[in-house]
Amino acid sequence: MPPELVGRVTAHLPRLSRAVMQLTSAEGFNILQNNGSVAGQHVPHVHFHIIPRVGTDGLGYRWLKSTYAPGRAEQVQRQLRDILRS
Amino acid sequence: MPPELVGRVTAHLPRLSRAVMQLTSAEGFNILQNNGSVAGQHVPHVHFHIIPRVGTDGLGYRWLKSTYAPGRAEQVQRQLRDILRS
Repeated sequence: MPPELVGRVTAHLPRLSRAVMQLTSAEGFNILQNNGSVAGQHVPHVHFHIIPRVGTDGLGYRWLKSTYAPGRAEQVQRQLRDILRS
Repeated sequence: MPPELVGRVTAHLPRLSRAVMQLTSAEGFNILQNNGSVAGQHVPHVHFHIIPRVGTDGLGYRWLKSTYAPGRAEQVQRQLRDILRS
């Protein structure tokens, strides 16, 4: 998706999120955007989920409880920087 | 966050996401943005998580397995539309 178009679409998120918050009286919200079926995308066009949250809802992201080996995070950071600079 | 600023920040997401995908050889990715501590926000400024995904990673969003009563979804939709029009 072209960066300019991403920017134009996402510029609507604050207004939409405020409306969802006003309607639900939630305490916070997640914005979730899935790319690819392995990432949970089931509708084949770009779309954003606005998910109102309260402290007792039990929702959230399932994380793997694992850590990088020492030095691995810095290595990934360097590699990512190299790709972005190339 | 002002809509214009949201647009300018998110316009970088395609480039950054491509770099993450190139580095990790992932099959998909999630973009996750958390607002409020109940939503999992622990760093007190606006930021986006780019989460590379593969089919076997076991990650994902924990959903509540419940459904709206008949007619409730349409009611919420109408209320949201009213808020956005007001």
